[in-house]
Amino acid sequence: MRAALCDNRPMPDTKHSSLREHLAQRFAQHLATAFILTSEEERRPYECDGLPAYRHLPLIVVLPADIEQVQAVMRICHEEQVPVVARGAGTGLSGGALPLEDGVLLSLARLNRILDIDPDNLSARVQPGVRNLAISEAARPFGLYYAPDPSSQIACTIGGNVAENAGGVHCLKYGLTVNNLLSLEVVTVEGERLRIGGSGLDSPGFDLLALMTGSEGMLGIVVEVVVKLLPIPSRAQVAMAAFDDVEQAGQAVADIIAEGILPAGLEMMDGPAIRAAEDFVHAGYPVDAAAILLCEVDGDNEEVSEEIARVRQRLLDSGASEVRTARDDAERARFWAGRKAAFPAVGRISPDYYCMDGTIPRKHLPRVLREIAAMSDQFGLRAANVFHAGDGNLHPLILYNGNAPGELERAEAFGGRILELCVEVGGTITGEHGVGLEKIDQMCAQFPPEELETFHAIKAAFDPLGLLNPGKAIPTLNRCAEFGAMHIRAGDLRFPHLERF
Amino acid sequence: MRAALCDNRPMPDTKHSSLREHLAQRFAQHLATAFILTSEEERRPYECDGLPAYRHLPLIVVLPADIEQVQAVMRICHEEQVPVVARGAGTGLSGGALPLEDGVLLSLARLNRILDIDPDNLSARVQPGVRNLAISEAARPFGLYYAPDPSSQIACTIGGNVAENAGGVHCLKYGLTVNNLLSLEVVTVEGERLRIGGSGLDSPGFDLLALMTGSEGMLGIVVEVVVKLLPIPSRAQVAMAAFDDVEQAGQAVADIIAEGILPAGLEMMDGPAIRAAEDFVHAGYPVDAAAILLCEVDGDNEEVSEEIARVRQRLLDSGASEVRTARDDAERARFWAGRKAAFPAVGRISPDYYCMDGTIPRKHLPRVLREIAAMSDQFGLRAANVFHAGDGNLHPLILYNGNAPGELERAEAFGGRILELCVEVGGTITGEHGVGLEKIDQMCAQFPPEELETFHAIKAAFDPLGLLNPGKAIPTLNRCAEFGAMHIRAGDLRFPHLERF
Repeated sequence: MRAALCDNRPMPDTKHSSLREHLAQRFAQHLATAFILTSEEERRPYECDGLPAYRHLPLIVVLPADIEQVQAVMRICHEEQVPVVARGAGTGLSGGALPLEDGVLLSLARLNRILDIDPDNLSARVQPGVRNLAISEAARPFGLYYAPDPSSQIACTIGGNVAENAGGVHCLKYGLTVNNLLSLEVVTVEGERLRIGGSGLDSPGFDLLALMTGSEGMLGIVVEVVVKLLPIPSRAQVAMAAFDDVEQAGQAVADIIAEGILPAGLEMMDGPAIRAAEDFVHAGYPVDAAAILLCEVDGDNEEVSEEIARVRQRLLDSGASEVRTARDDAERARFWAGRKAAFPAVGRISPDYYCMDGTIPRKHLPRVLREIAAMSDQFGLRAANVFHAGDGNLHPLILYNGNAPGELERAEAFGGRILELCVEVGGTITGEHGVGLEKIDQMCAQFPPEELETFHAIKAAFDPLGLLNPGKAIPTLNRCAEFGAMHIRAGDLRFPHLERF
Repeated sequence: MRAALCDNRPMPDTKHSSLREHLAQRFAQHLATAFILTSEEERRPYECDGLPAYRHLPLIVVLPADIEQVQAVMRICHEEQVPVVARGAGTGLSGGALPLEDGVLLSLARLNRILDIDPDNLSARVQPGVRNLAISEAARPFGLYYAPDPSSQIACTIGGNVAENAGGVHCLKYGLTVNNLLSLEVVTVEGERLRIGGSGLDSPGFDLLALMTGSEGMLGIVVEVVVKLLPIPSRAQVAMAAFDDVEQAGQAVADIIAEGILPAGLEMMDGPAIRAAEDFVHAGYPVDAAAILLCEVDGDNEEVSEEIARVRQRLLDSGASEVRTARDDAERARFWAGRKAAFPAVGRISPDYYCMDGTIPRKHLPRVLREIAAMSDQFGLRAANVFHAGDGNLHPLILYNGNAPGELERAEAFGGRILELCVEVGGTITGEHGVGLEKIDQMCAQFPPEELETFHAIKAAFDPLGLLNPGKAIPTLNRCAEFGAMHIRAGDLRFPHLERF
């Protein structure tokens, strides 16, 4: 496996051409040739996902139309011992769908039908290429919706959501993807069909549904998904609180949750993020605040009125300098528009930014925010903090200029330190973006060898030859040994995989 | 492995005595001899769990005091290749803790300390032998509690809850055990310590926490558990609705959920169960009703008032002949007392009963209730239905007389048919009681060979020699082939494992 930073190091593409031709011929017995992409021009759009710092031109791209064609592709790849990377919409931020030069890129984009909406059982049966938001759109006539709402929900597909166990603003109250699934149909590495889970509450045997969810394409190919639907709440209301101090805002988050309030969403932005967003979308944010919290509650009319009053009081008690409740749906939408546009807004004030994703126990929010500020000084790079505060899921954005020598490396080292800090305080190196290729070395900091060995044993139980998305998500023990050796030279932490590939 | 029905067939106990002595000597290097039980008298209390139809006298019983002693026991068993069955309080209803005549019974009863209550992070760190209810008792001074509440919560332990993924009345709103865990510490079959999960929202890598939960002691020994705590709701209220028709009550359950109400508990009892319970505890139930529903809502004062009003209206719209709201906490406790005493109450009206546990999609409740009534006629045995209706988790109690020739066999065949019906309508053969030994053959009806093979591959990844609780939860393909052959002679369905052991 090789990776190139952007387009700096073009890869030789002739090496595997005979294998490509051979596979194309075999696939053509099952798929129309229009959906078997072999030319460089056709393959180029698939060279990266939402982590474009890494690009590989895949050996060949196939776009099956149905489950039988997915099975045929997998059977051929298994016989030929060719690795396979599955891809949904390619919006993933950790490089989980980065293709292999010597592997097949299997796009699920054409399996994009909503098969059934079952209002009695509050569920929808959909193909993996269906967009996240399209499920809620189809369910709306029944008064239902699908709760998990990653920022990319207009574009990202449910198959990718399952692979990465995607979250979103509302996962504080409604859970991650894994909490909103009933069953999956999967094609195994051998091309067999496997149905996992059921429409009941619990399933006997080992929990394969949870195991498959978030497995980043390493255990099987998701070809059908049954999701839970929820009744659309009759009302939602949002309160915005301004704080003069970031740590105080962090404490307010812990206070709200400790009070037993479970908001639908509880988001935090710090000063740089507030000013970038306000400049961009004019959300009405207090630009001189050190931090704001956005706290949404949903439910019945009266329930919402009563809960938003408690939230207001709690925020004031926690030291908010100002609390504003959206007067109407238009203002509520405006409050959220700033949050949702925060990433592109930061993109306007810096040539480049690096979006991190870590999770910490909520009670450590004040400490972690303080240490990120100190690291910002240490590395000489600005950071903007935007995150799902209620979950303790951080998304620090590290601002850098990719054209300034050494800044990318400093940004990555800064990011690496943030993730290690997450682990130190008892959190994890990912909240909702997955490990992919991006964070594979941090997995060595997260897990001891015994647990990594368990991961490998599970991987081998599904995929003994290691053909499914090899090199992602779970580092080898050798890799960790090398990384560990690097790790000891702290302060000069580097990402060896950037250099080695 | 052998099983005996009650005490009918005493087992020879001398066969393994030299192995017993050898193990006792090795264990004595790590544990005080008082906690190594070798005499028949000492071992007898461990011969069965809450499924007393099956009994085996274990080879030897050990009661380690701490994690290091658990590790020592596992290392010795691994070296000696002796199988190990772990046991909590032994309240499990599916025989998951049934010992082996040639195996070690590992009791976690002495690991019974609450290590930490963390109100800031809403969590508690406890040893596996801590009783379920003891966690809530310890958390109460902080205004917190642990939500899952199996009926046996006074006695059952959190380690057993994890092993069986226990549920309870409140799991409709608050989820099963798996939804209320943050992390586990596990001792592997080789005696290594493995920490799984963390205090953050999500964990990278495969979801070992979900995989371990409900794995019935087949993947590792749980030695420490970090559970989520929730703020105690400020108020709870219960409505009781009477129906003249069982199917109508089933439909009302679906109607309530479809309306977007998520009760804390939604329980159903049919006529025979109502009358048995009323006779026993005088709960104030309408004894001429065909079914009652108990619907509890919890939360803030106003929220509860508003929601209970909606529940009342919905129940009346669904055809309830009467809806009563508990006037005070004493009446609320009385309403629940009937439900909680339903099993022993049924025990008063029949010499024996067989408690089933299956799960179905809620929308099929009316059909399944109708078919259970038809089966009752067909098998010539009465049934009382008591269940977690909101989850679609059925607990039909089949009434029989073990001393009447053929009745036990008819009861088991009746039970088997109910579970197969659950699978037919898209449900599962277990809701919250686990598979254990009891339902191992029904696993063949639940799962196709490919999925069973996946289970075995996962099992082998953790326990290549098959030393952890062998013969439980996951049937071999051979066993299913034999069961399948029996199965073809429908109408005369038998449980081959009753005859073969």
